Amino acid sequence: MSRILTNEIDLETVEKSRINDVDFDNIDFGREFTDHMFSCDFVDGEWQTPKIMPYQALTLDPSARVFHYGQAVFEGMKAFKDDQDEVWLFRPEDNFNRINISAARLAIPEFPKDYFLNGLKTLIQLDKAWVKKGDGNALYIRPFVIATEPAISAAPANEYKFMIICSPVKAYYKGRLSVLFAEKFSRSADGGVGFAKAAGNYAAQFYPTNLANKKGFQQIIWTDANTHEYLEEAGTMNIFFRINNTLVTAPTSDRILDGITRKSVIQLAKDNNIDVEIRRVSVKEIKEAAMDGSLKEIFGSGTAAVISPISAFEHAGDVFEIPDLEDSYSTFFKRKLMDIQYNKSDDQHGWRYKV
Amino acid sequence: MSRILTNEIDLETVEKSRINDVDFDNIDFGREFTDHMFSCDFVDGEWQTPKIMPYQALTLDPSARVFHYGQAVFEGMKAFKDDQDEVWLFRPEDNFNRINISAARLAIPEFPKDYFLNGLKTLIQLDKAWVKKGDGNALYIRPFVIATEPAISAAPANEYKFMIICSPVKAYYKGRLSVLFAEKFSRSADGGVGFAKAAGNYAAQFYPTNLANKKGFQQIIWTDANTHEYLEEAGTMNIFFRINNTLVTAPTSDRILDGITRKSVIQLAKDNNIDVEIRRVSVKEIKEAAMDGSLKEIFGSGTAAVISPISAFEHAGDVFEIPDLEDSYSTFFKRKLMDIQYNKSDDQHGWRYKV
Ligand SMILES: Cc1ncc(COP(=O)(O)O)c(C=O)c1O
Ligand SMILES: Cc1ncc(COP(=O)(O)O)c(C=O)c1O
Repeated sequence: MSRILTNEIDLETVEKSRINDVDFDNIDFGREFTDHMFSCDFVDGEWQTPKIMPYQALTLDPSARVFHYGQAVFEGMKAFKDDQDEVWLFRPEDNFNRINISAARLAIPEFPKDYFLNGLKTLIQLDKAWVKKGDGNALYIRPFVIATEPAISAAPANEYKFMIICSPVKAYYKGRLSVLFAEKFSRSADGGVGFAKAAGNYAAQFYPTNLANKKGFQQIIWTDANTHEYLEEAGTMNIFFRINNTLVTAPTSDRILDGITRKSVIQLAKDNNIDVEIRRVSVKEIKEAAMDGSLKEIFGSGTAAVISPISAFEHAGDVFEIPDLEDSYSTFFKRKLMDIQYNKSDDQHGWRYKV
Repeated sequence: MSRILTNEIDLETVEKSRINDVDFDNIDFGREFTDHMFSCDFVDGEWQTPKIMPYQALTLDPSARVFHYGQAVFEGMKAFKDDQDEVWLFRPEDNFNRINISAARLAIPEFPKDYFLNGLKTLIQLDKAWVKKGDGNALYIRPFVIATEPAISAAPANEYKFMIICSPVKAYYKGRLSVLFAEKFSRSADGGVGFAKAAGNYAAQFYPTNLANKKGFQQIIWTDANTHEYLEEAGTMNIFFRINNTLVTAPTSDRILDGITRKSVIQLAKDNNIDVEIRRVSVKEIKEAAMDGSLKEIFGSGTAAVISPISAFEHAGDVFEIPDLEDSYSTFFKRKLMDIQYNKSDDQHGWRYKV
């Protein structure tokens, strides 16, 4: 265990890595964590010196505000290892910007950019051996902020903890998903926190998703809370529809997360002369397009699965199957994105970020 | 420190109480906690033997699901001491029912009723000295459940902790409140979790409430997320309007918490021949009533403040002052409720519950 200061980070390393205890061929998503974690406390009105230390349990008072009022936000990002053993992040500044947008909406103080990027780089360098090569293998990175102040008054906390933990993930091919279009439950409303990666947004989806699972659907595509006529996004993915050869996706709003994979897909579509329409998409339009055959694909976009093709959807008792396409957009975009992420292709837009 | 089993509770008591360190005349809401706490873990598909132990910090993995997905619900209740040193709860079975309603919506397993009531009684008996006599003094009781499973997949946890912590509170006379009617931000939507005491509902209100505070208003009265035309409830209180001599309050729904104080006020109004209308209340109606003088009072109802009279409201730049009334309903109901709570009057409906 050594303790040194690097770039204003107080660094304490493990004596012995746990990496040999891990069966990398059999890891469930988000259960295994690397040797180290990043932690930075907000007290007395400022973020203190960040620390990197052995991954370990937290000690919190039972009155810590995160337990009672859900004052917490997070991010999800990945690091990839290329054939030369270099490690890359994908658009990390967008995650940084987004965690502060989420934080502002939850009345959490902004986190400094250099703390974030330095912390991320130092942490991943240290745990570089945990990033495995090979298509689909990656290090899933979870920055998050929690309100730690021990006082249960219903008001923003004066104390927080910003942390980064990392979890190795392997390629997962779950096949195509079948989904339910929401008819009754809703995920977010105008004027609410749907656009933020606020902790409470996720727990709120568990029960409706359990019901969908029982009916044989893996996920829900949320519709607008007012009318349930317009398709918005899934629980952890933005959604694209391919109608003939045009890609259609809902505009981001108060209610919809501004996904980094979503905006990358939109850019790649433009780069590759695929028409993209960013506009409201009604359930009616998609059902009609499924019936007349113009609906060619539906897929989700998000950091965890990159691109998730959807094979069927249900709405008001009607089930529609979407035939599998030989040269699908979903395969095309997944390949394009992964080639950039794993440093196998040009990076025209400067999305790769060397660790 | 003694360890005994009582009524299936594993009991570990403090060696020495901290009570003499506490200045009961100067306590902020929710910062001081009693000697003991109740804790019960859900693992392997069931709630384990409950424990009462010295109040102490929790140790949780940084990947515990509550930190990431806000899978947490809570309750708020109070214990009161009467002149004969007996301690009473107020409608605790309603809190029990409600925490399980909240839990179901958040995909958290139901908690057993006898664990809840036995736990509550044993804990409060043990920390009885912390319940102070005198109007307004009480023990604020916070049952809560958090998802503890150390795995960051976005799905309901398999492990939880149910806890009860207690905090002595004193009478607080904050005077009348001025409030803002929400025009843009929203608290909940149909099909969402607004009716549940879900942790994330509270953090979502902090930022809009900060903005209201900056404009000189202490709280927000939320309106419906679709049109912002109908008044719903405040952050931790249901809202009543007195128009001439009729009491009006919004019906509970998907979006509104079924407050125990609210339903007690409605019952007491009926008992005392005060007309109550449970119906939608529009902003327009209340502004007109304020202008023509028929709006006599607005007040909030909730466990923390019992009844909070409101002195002014703002909407769309219009500010309305509500003159203070000599024989207000708010004073009347507060007195009636407190007389029942402190065992000073008959308890016609069986609301008192002896500890
Ligand atoms: C609600 C929601 N929508 C969409 C996404 C996809 O966003 P990104 O592509 O940035 O991972 C996520 C996951 O981050 C999410 O939580
Ligand atoms: C959103 C909300 N509304 C209303 C109330 C009032 O409910 P009760 O009277 O049961 O305390 C509370 C507080 O518990 C609350 O959190």
